[in-house]
Amino acid sequence: MSGISEVARRAGVSKSTASRALGSTGYVSEDTRERVARAAAELGYVPSTSAVSLATGRTKNIGVVMPYLNRWFFAEVLEGIQEALLEHGLDLTLYDANPGSEGRARIFDDYLARKRFDGLIAVGLEPDHRELERLVAIGRPMVSVVGSGETTSLVAIDEEDAARRATEHLLALGHERIAFLGGRPDQHWAQVDRRRLGGYTSAMEDAGLGAGIRHIHSDVTLPGGYAAAVNVLGDLRERPTAIVATCDEVAIGAIIAARRLGVQVPSALSVIGIDDHEYAEMFSLTTLKQDPRAQGRAAVDLVLAHLQDPHRPHSILRQRATMVVRSSTAPLAPDRSAAVTDARA
Amino acid sequence: MSGISEVARRAGVSKSTASRALGSTGYVSEDTRERVARAAAELGYVPSTSAVSLATGRTKNIGVVMPYLNRWFFAEVLEGIQEALLEHGLDLTLYDANPGSEGRARIFDDYLARKRFDGLIAVGLEPDHRELERLVAIGRPMVSVVGSGETTSLVAIDEEDAARRATEHLLALGHERIAFLGGRPDQHWAQVDRRRLGGYTSAMEDAGLGAGIRHIHSDVTLPGGYAAAVNVLGDLRERPTAIVATCDEVAIGAIIAARRLGVQVPSALSVIGIDDHEYAEMFSLTTLKQDPRAQGRAAVDLVLAHLQDPHRPHSILRQRATMVVRSSTAPLAPDRSAAVTDARA
Repeated sequence: MSGISEVARRAGVSKSTASRALGSTGYVSEDTRERVARAAAELGYVPSTSAVSLATGRTKNIGVVMPYLNRWFFAEVLEGIQEALLEHGLDLTLYDANPGSEGRARIFDDYLARKRFDGLIAVGLEPDHRELERLVAIGRPMVSVVGSGETTSLVAIDEEDAARRATEHLLALGHERIAFLGGRPDQHWAQVDRRRLGGYTSAMEDAGLGAGIRHIHSDVTLPGGYAAAVNVLGDLRERPTAIVATCDEVAIGAIIAARRLGVQVPSALSVIGIDDHEYAEMFSLTTLKQDPRAQGRAAVDLVLAHLQDPHRPHSILRQRATMVVRSSTAPLAPDRSAAVTDARA
Repeated sequence: MSGISEVARRAGVSKSTASRALGSTGYVSEDTRERVARAAAELGYVPSTSAVSLATGRTKNIGVVMPYLNRWFFAEVLEGIQEALLEHGLDLTLYDANPGSEGRARIFDDYLARKRFDGLIAVGLEPDHRELERLVAIGRPMVSVVGSGETTSLVAIDEEDAARRATEHLLALGHERIAFLGGRPDQHWAQVDRRRLGGYTSAMEDAGLGAGIRHIHSDVTLPGGYAAAVNVLGDLRERPTAIVATCDEVAIGAIIAARRLGVQVPSALSVIGIDDHEYAEMFSLTTLKQDPRAQGRAAVDLVLAHLQDPHRPHSILRQRATMVVRSSTAPLAPDRSAAVTDARA
């Protein structure tokens, strides 16, 4: 996270003006306030807050709602939130809102309405229309991690951009038969996977490969990626030369599937993911790295900022994923059929 | 979980006597109370409680302390706890007490002392002497998941028994060069890994193979198992024919390492784990299955039972792991060097 000086420099104002513009007191023109807010958002700057004084007389408790606890991204975000709350002397109340579960309905109908928290962090929640109404009715500051940022402050990576750059990396290596692996268009199709598919699609179209766009459906888990890849890689005529996976767990599943089938990665198949999962290094996976722990910490900073200033406008902190090139991606082999034969020898 | 009738039958008393013995009111002899309590513990019976009435006037909140959020076992236990608490209308306050971290000290010194919960569930916490004193001083009902059961009620599997049976499975298949993989004797060596090593050790000794006992140190993670196994399997003279891994994540790391090195599983190397991790099926892993989600639910039942009856004696619910045989284990090949040569052809 950047400091106030960098925000001031970017907005072209003095440090004290930037401070005033971001605080709730002191006069600055609307134009300046907007300019500073934009600079702060671009730099990912969040004003530091003293949670202890903030929380006096409140519940000293922040609620966290997330659909899964046992997936890497969610566990990492939760660790980041927990670390930051501890530093501020605040408790964390956890609500596990599994999509479609009875428990989820109960959380929205009963638990959240009790308002036993000062603010709420929703991680990858993707509320439906009715759920969103309930959330708004609570009237507590709320920050989303992953999401659209339409109704709340948001911390996320630019999903489309990450998948687009993953695809462009493979295009630059000479690949054309590039498939997108992960997610399926049903009621639980996460918006995040949709956005990543969108990034892949636009990169393919821009490269004149619109006719070759291919979405291989799978559960967004390591075994899900494995099962789908076994199916696809077993078919020699249909096999892509490269895969953009919707996340590293799916990508690693695909790599394990390729190894089982004797398809050499990367000489016969390139695979790229999004995340930089804790297993990525071990599988030499090229990926677009994000830092979910830092996103959790930033969400805490934001929710505290909203508590300090209830009139604070929403912020969108959308960070850019960083490309990490390892050895799961390589230039398209000059004679691909030879590479395949090699692998099966 | 069994019903009250089964407890009564096992203890050789009437259903109503069993009820009185397990409740806090009504006379039964000390001897009967003990007999019924033992039967209840053996059957894993926990009296059902109405949390809503229980919690009236209390915080309606159960604290959960665990050292890791991002490992399979802990995430599954947490899901089980969350599910059960939701059903009882209770909130979950989470404390992430990473061993050796500054946050952990703060949790013990400040957070827990605030007593913002009616009861506490400690998952794999392994408190040191000072921490244990703090916990006792809180004076709230507490249940441990994984642990010794010396000072609190406990839900766990019989760790020694699980590792012993894993080892005996390999011995029955004709293996003698069996190594135990995972954990390392340093300050964060979890008691659970120590107990599992103990089960392996006694099985080896009982088979007259005490001289062949070998503990390969590794981090208790998938990449940890991978790194240690790459090291060991690369050395032909030192290579074991079978591995008992301290958990499935470590076992799967070893299988991935074996595949990378061209060591065929199971013809040249058998691998067995403990857990039945979500990836176990995909790697055809033979394992001793436990159900951490059910352990989380049982811990909630127990903490509520303690809330209902503060004088309730501690219960130890130690379940037996179930063997699941898949294809990562096989009889020792008659000529092992042939199998190795095959794999390298």
